[in-house]
Amino acid sequence: MDKGISSAVIKRLPRYYRYLGSLLDDGIKRISSKDLSERMNLTASQIRQDLNNFGSFGQQGYGYNIEVLHAEIKKLLGLDKTYNMIIVGAGNIGQALLNYINYQKRGYNFVGVFDKNPKLVGLSIRGLEIRDIDTLEDFLGKNKVDIAVLSLPGNNAEQVIKTIVDCGVKGIWNFSHILPAETPDDVIIENVHLTDSLMTLTYKLTELENNKN
Amino acid sequence: MDKGISSAVIKRLPRYYRYLGSLLDDGIKRISSKDLSERMNLTASQIRQDLNNFGSFGQQGYGYNIEVLHAEIKKLLGLDKTYNMIIVGAGNIGQALLNYINYQKRGYNFVGVFDKNPKLVGLSIRGLEIRDIDTLEDFLGKNKVDIAVLSLPGNNAEQVIKTIVDCGVKGIWNFSHILPAETPDDVIIENVHLTDSLMTLTYKLTELENNKN
Repeated sequence: MDKGISSAVIKRLPRYYRYLGSLLDDGIKRISSKDLSERMNLTASQIRQDLNNFGSFGQQGYGYNIEVLHAEIKKLLGLDKTYNMIIVGAGNIGQALLNYINYQKRGYNFVGVFDKNPKLVGLSIRGLEIRDIDTLEDFLGKNKVDIAVLSLPGNNAEQVIKTIVDCGVKGIWNFSHILPAETPDDVIIENVHLTDSLMTLTYKLTELENNKN
Repeated sequence: MDKGISSAVIKRLPRYYRYLGSLLDDGIKRISSKDLSERMNLTASQIRQDLNNFGSFGQQGYGYNIEVLHAEIKKLLGLDKTYNMIIVGAGNIGQALLNYINYQKRGYNFVGVFDKNPKLVGLSIRGLEIRDIDTLEDFLGKNKVDIAVLSLPGNNAEQVIKTIVDCGVKGIWNFSHILPAETPDDVIIENVHLTDSLMTLTYKLTELENNKN
């Protein structure tokens, strides 16, 4: 059922999941594609097309069964499982991500934090002691880690990625500026380039300004 | 010159800017599309196509003049200007963004931080006192703000967006889960959905796992 879903639809899945979850929180059981479209800024036909990808949860005239649809998308997103995660780079962004307590509600378990800065090593964040990055390989040999969060400067990231991949970690959530050149096909890298996003914003602001003149 | 550039190219602009900047830092003056393609994981023909959008900085057999190209992309990205920025929501992500000192090097000036939590109001981060969110409108009336960073929970974001837009702020860097329904055409919103990005990663990990079985 998860074969052949376009990447545009996949990108919208988390949004569906969040909206349907908030409807469930409000005690709502069914919703029409029209009502959902108004809440989500998508057209009703777009929503019907998207959701048809996952089976037929909608019933003409009755709308979607929110609970069933939410559970199905949860499974598609892999959120019915738990993930052991580590953070490499305990600077501002790393600490913020660790503190962002929401994650734990969804089955994201932080099991280790690493940094090379001696001023940080030994400190605790949310009950996790920051470990010396030199112990990363040893740690990965002894602990199952599903996802490594990379929140360290680009010049250090390349070696860390190699270590992580060699130790069998399959998921990398990459906040560093490094786009690793070669990683095995069975390693998934999701890049978050914060400064690129901000530059995109200033690009559009500049374009707007130029068009006014 | 900035008319009609496709959004795919625009998305790559920050990456070109970063790579060219690091080449300049290394004292390199010229680079061929082939060498650049190896560093950037793009094909040489893709790079030539992309850069042709901004004029002809490449010379057959001599490669690109990095300094000229870098300066041109900087201008396109609006990075030759400075931006007054505020942060609304001084929690973990907000504080991390403020601390992420790199920004200031590029002309991003934080002029205010706001939160509604009385435990945070009055504290200082990087020399900026956290202000009560109730003073936001007053502040925006007295200070020119180009970009508002929204790093607050979704349920509070809608009203804040309305205030910000009404006060004439044109750029919103949105880390909240709210996708504002209606904003004027001359307001640019750049969304960063961190949890969606993590869900995309777990989706792909799950897909990988399913394909193995």
